[in-house]
Amino acid sequence: MNFYKQPDKLWCITENKLNKDTTKGFEGMFAQGSGYLQIRGTFEEGLAAAPQNEEYMRMPANVTIEKPHHPRSKSGVYIPGITGTHPLLKEEIVNLPNFLVLEVYADEEKLDMDTSDILNYSRSLDLRDGVLYREFDWNTKFGAMIKCEYTRFVSRNTPNIVVQSVRFTADKDCQIDVKSDINTEVRTNGFNHFIKVSKSYIDNKVLTQVETDNQDKVLMMTEIFSENFDFTADEGDYSEIILTADKTVTINKLSCAMTTRDLTDEECSFDTLSEKLSSSKQKFNSLYNDNAKEWIDMWNRSKVIIDGDENAQRAVNFSIYHLLRASNYKDNRTAICAKGFAGEAYFGHFFWDTEIYLIPFFLYTNPEIAKSLVEFRINTLNGAKRNAKVYGYDGAKYPWESSITGDEQCPNWQYADNEVHINADVALGIWHYFCATGDEKFLVKSIDVLIETAKYWTCRAEFKANGEININGVMGPDEYCCFSNNNAYTNYMVVNTLKYTLEAVKIAEKYNVTTDLSEEQISKIKLIIKKLPLKCNKSGILMQCDGFDKFEELDFDKIWTDKSKPFGQFISQERNYRSKALKQADVLMIPYLFNKAMDKETITKNYNYYYKYTTHDSSLSCIIHSIICAHLGDTKAAYNLFNKSLSIDLGTGAAEGIHIANCGGIWQGIVIGFAGMKWSYENDKLEFEPNLPKEWKRLEFNIHFKGKFYNVSIADNNTVVTEI
Amino acid sequence: MNFYKQPDKLWCITENKLNKDTTKGFEGMFAQGSGYLQIRGTFEEGLAAAPQNEEYMRMPANVTIEKPHHPRSKSGVYIPGITGTHPLLKEEIVNLPNFLVLEVYADEEKLDMDTSDILNYSRSLDLRDGVLYREFDWNTKFGAMIKCEYTRFVSRNTPNIVVQSVRFTADKDCQIDVKSDINTEVRTNGFNHFIKVSKSYIDNKVLTQVETDNQDKVLMMTEIFSENFDFTADEGDYSEIILTADKTVTINKLSCAMTTRDLTDEECSFDTLSEKLSSSKQKFNSLYNDNAKEWIDMWNRSKVIIDGDENAQRAVNFSIYHLLRASNYKDNRTAICAKGFAGEAYFGHFFWDTEIYLIPFFLYTNPEIAKSLVEFRINTLNGAKRNAKVYGYDGAKYPWESSITGDEQCPNWQYADNEVHINADVALGIWHYFCATGDEKFLVKSIDVLIETAKYWTCRAEFKANGEININGVMGPDEYCCFSNNNAYTNYMVVNTLKYTLEAVKIAEKYNVTTDLSEEQISKIKLIIKKLPLKCNKSGILMQCDGFDKFEELDFDKIWTDKSKPFGQFISQERNYRSKALKQADVLMIPYLFNKAMDKETITKNYNYYYKYTTHDSSLSCIIHSIICAHLGDTKAAYNLFNKSLSIDLGTGAAEGIHIANCGGIWQGIVIGFAGMKWSYENDKLEFEPNLPKEWKRLEFNIHFKGKFYNVSIADNNTVVTEI
Repeated sequence: MNFYKQPDKLWCITENKLNKDTTKGFEGMFAQGSGYLQIRGTFEEGLAAAPQNEEYMRMPANVTIEKPHHPRSKSGVYIPGITGTHPLLKEEIVNLPNFLVLEVYADEEKLDMDTSDILNYSRSLDLRDGVLYREFDWNTKFGAMIKCEYTRFVSRNTPNIVVQSVRFTADKDCQIDVKSDINTEVRTNGFNHFIKVSKSYIDNKVLTQVETDNQDKVLMMTEIFSENFDFTADEGDYSEIILTADKTVTINKLSCAMTTRDLTDEECSFDTLSEKLSSSKQKFNSLYNDNAKEWIDMWNRSKVIIDGDENAQRAVNFSIYHLLRASNYKDNRTAICAKGFAGEAYFGHFFWDTEIYLIPFFLYTNPEIAKSLVEFRINTLNGAKRNAKVYGYDGAKYPWESSITGDEQCPNWQYADNEVHINADVALGIWHYFCATGDEKFLVKSIDVLIETAKYWTCRAEFKANGEININGVMGPDEYCCFSNNNAYTNYMVVNTLKYTLEAVKIAEKYNVTTDLSEEQISKIKLIIKKLPLKCNKSGILMQCDGFDKFEELDFDKIWTDKSKPFGQFISQERNYRSKALKQADVLMIPYLFNKAMDKETITKNYNYYYKYTTHDSSLSCIIHSIICAHLGDTKAAYNLFNKSLSIDLGTGAAEGIHIANCGGIWQGIVIGFAGMKWSYENDKLEFEPNLPKEWKRLEFNIHFKGKFYNVSIADNNTVVTEI
Repeated sequence: MNFYKQPDKLWCITENKLNKDTTKGFEGMFAQGSGYLQIRGTFEEGLAAAPQNEEYMRMPANVTIEKPHHPRSKSGVYIPGITGTHPLLKEEIVNLPNFLVLEVYADEEKLDMDTSDILNYSRSLDLRDGVLYREFDWNTKFGAMIKCEYTRFVSRNTPNIVVQSVRFTADKDCQIDVKSDINTEVRTNGFNHFIKVSKSYIDNKVLTQVETDNQDKVLMMTEIFSENFDFTADEGDYSEIILTADKTVTINKLSCAMTTRDLTDEECSFDTLSEKLSSSKQKFNSLYNDNAKEWIDMWNRSKVIIDGDENAQRAVNFSIYHLLRASNYKDNRTAICAKGFAGEAYFGHFFWDTEIYLIPFFLYTNPEIAKSLVEFRINTLNGAKRNAKVYGYDGAKYPWESSITGDEQCPNWQYADNEVHINADVALGIWHYFCATGDEKFLVKSIDVLIETAKYWTCRAEFKANGEININGVMGPDEYCCFSNNNAYTNYMVVNTLKYTLEAVKIAEKYNVTTDLSEEQISKIKLIIKKLPLKCNKSGILMQCDGFDKFEELDFDKIWTDKSKPFGQFISQERNYRSKALKQADVLMIPYLFNKAMDKETITKNYNYYYKYTTHDSSLSCIIHSIICAHLGDTKAAYNLFNKSLSIDLGTGAAEGIHIANCGGIWQGIVIGFAGMKWSYENDKLEFEPNLPKEWKRLEFNIHFKGKFYNVSIADNNTVVTEI
């Protein structure tokens, strides 16, 4: 097998220097995965300075200003859906044993990127096929110069298999000792979720079984072999390899994982695992091509071509890579977590990002993945019903931070209790899927989500004696305003999704599906649609919430003395919560999601009012502003904001995981923003109103729309749409 | 020594039946203490069903609706000021080793109140001298009937000494085995705060040293001896005692504690402890009288006599007992914690109760204790300054839950951040002390507290461009409204205490003490005094906060289906926070604290408006309403509410500790409410406007006022004040 390729600057993310400050950032950026299995970009040999079994208590702090514990490096092996229970953080995805481990000694010197003398280092992730390369020259203490080339990928084709291959070439005869291992001494956010751990070494295999505190069993097996020589049965010991000067030795490592979440207890055995591993070993040389083929198919659908802007091209490739990597349309029991399964921040929970930032990308490129994300909400409806009941309300309340069962996991009450717009976001996701696919049967299948969230609103809205209707005590998308009345975004979304619900009910009736909405509930839904307010101040600015214009005005320049850090670090939460300081777009989410909601003059007025108060402390913010600017024809401002979004993971790295919502946002920035594609729930036809940045010579992408796929090419603001 | 007395129904709290449901409640009610040392009313022999070393993680939940872990019984030995650090609850008072332990076997049957056959059980706390008695007949499995009489007290005179005495009288010859011990296997809120523990047995003594995670060392020693026979050196083993039929054997146990908080490391030794114990042993027979004398002196000052209402008489005796027990005027490095050092709820923190509920009682009966409480705030000013700095403000922000250093300990942000009225409460405490004592020098000594809290308000208030001034984003006394603007109580208190501050500055100038208030700060203070709003709705009701009358109206009868439990248990916090549901008096705190703030008609109108929304879920609520009703002349309603307050600890017990603020409140209900005493900060002279309940024939109490003590006797609403 030979899958070494020349790095391509548009398609490869490259690390050219060892730098302790960026190690963890690259681990997130270099995340690889098959949808089923996800791994972080840690070094095979680990780092002596970063033990992986450090235990500490991670508090459920305010997410924006939290400063989590930062080990030097953090291995990550995740199978979405395999979760544990943390005493404070509630359900969290479990970091599984690291089966990538390959320790290397040369003449008794241990290889360690921190302490060894490493020359000509480079590491590169090829976004086209998900292969991670590392090469360097190791100037050993005993005078040998060993060229080391590491390569690995998670097989998209056989999604529970990881393929690793290492080549050593020394400039003189020397001995190296290698050991393949599985590190079971790993923690998730400092917590040990394993209630049982076993490990054994048989011949050249390592076998591990762990049981999580949520009663999932995970079995892993890894085998080491070489085309160049026979490994002696090492059984946990090091194997000696004699390198002859200038002769390359290749070592392969094949690893496989299985869980009782996917298989019965009987099926999930070391025998099954052994068979799987052995059959993969037999076709070892075709594993790369099988994987690459899957990636080529995915890219053919999803690719975006930006002529004239290499930085944007590379960034959008990076974003789409991670969106595809993190998604698994074959499993609708999980969705895509906030960090794209590339780190432990946000604990593997699922947020409103799913509907607003992720679904559009998938829906218009890979609708089967969007479907699986919508199905996740259908599957978790019972959890959402339980949540509503906790509050004493009818219907369903989707959780701000969803577990795999739909139960609320957010440990901070102000988000869990108040950020209720999630319920309308979920409903929009369903309606969006219906509008983009035209799939009435699926809409009928998901009607209960619309009905049950609608029921919730009939309880959650306040019907005043004087006829007014309010939704009070909420947090909008702007999380720097924790407790407000009549949040504009929330109210707008509630009204629109209730309208969709009534439409959906009519469609369902065509299929003889009736709902259990009572007369009173229907009448309340209609009242909410009619009367839920959107309030403007005297200058005609849509108020983010009641009394927003009376919030305290801040002197941002005085307070925010280092704009490289989030504003939230420079102000107390107490003051922030009562001031005109936005974490992210809130009112502006309305014209972004509903192009017809406001005329351009009104959008401009609102943009100018809110922009000066917006800190963009949330990674979800810049791209929305970019889209609005593009729609307004201010491509320069749009391009600046777009570029800020591009740098969110690529600039400072993705130590805690990928900002996957921003990845979806970047795609939207291009397709919804610059290309001006109209939302399918506002337009029956595929339509574009492009405003490309002057830097872009041509823009090309594919779009799925109502079951057909189109190629879209835009140059000089001239749009050509071709069915493919 | 013989201090067995006939229980007096007005002066004794009695438990006549063993009942598993009330064991823990009585442990709190039967708390004993010397100010320096506090113990809970657990049985000497413990309960097999209640191991004291259970570890669990207590979460910092919303205090009202928290359902804490309930062991069957909880020993408690506290030295105020000895604290530990809990990972979630922050600083908490440490439950120290239980040195009261005395295990007893009779013919191999272990005495246990759960499992032994116990007849004629009674236990009684004498409030006059703080002595706890227990007597019962033990029908042993081996056919003997043993009369057991236990008695114990914490010496008010030698405040680190606990005296215990037990008498056994059997109806036939039998053997008993006793073991005196110190149980070091104790936890605080499920957490182990001891980083070092040592224990040894020497002769009849047990010696223990623990070091807390806050680096305090606590040494304890206990010795067992008898007047009837010589204990063999048991050294941790049981001692055999042969009981001859009908002959009483008395066993005494003397225990002593010392800490490095009070003594240097050198002084704090087992040698010192041994000397102390031995000198106490020598005067063993006078220990009770010395203790009783102290109590008599305290009672002479503090007593309240209610002729015609035995229930109220006993309850006020109970309240004053706990107030005196919990107080220690010799140590101004701590105050009195929310549970009166009789349990671990609220973690030993200090609240606004100090100024509003506790200081009035002490100020008008034992001003030296009030002084020590005010001094605690002076001593913790630096902590309050640190808190202000955390928020980015000048001056000082007293913590909602104070540590012994004045640093914020409240683990819930909505209280810590928003319940800012504490800062004004502390200022009122100082001014109140000054007005009641006339001590100008002390006022000058405490001027920095007034100045620094005033500085805080100049930053915390919002000065609008249109000239309006608001204090927004606050929680008032009503903790069911977590985030509101212009809370009436807060604004009223801020304005008044800023007025006091300006007056105090003038007085300080007489003593050539100048302040560092800038011109700008002074001008802001004056603006706040002038412009901070109190807003009424159209019906002239003072609004608890902006927009209160638009909050959701609740159907209390529908929601609150079991009024024996707090309302908060029947509604989600989310809904509660946006509804017209008060945890406790908020607007009504104004006429309670400021009799001249409103005319009676206005008070009545506000009372009627808010009363229907008030759940009294806080123990601080009923008594305020009682006082208001008494002032309005509605003595029937006042009396009903007063009786509800009386039953807060006496009704359902004090499992988690004494509601010490309510104890102070009960005294105020009598003196400020029914007797209508005018506050010294509103009236220069001692004045009364009584409205006694019709049940009360005569009311008598003593009052300190500006350095003099008065006896006050009220009958038929005729008040006789006599200097004593």
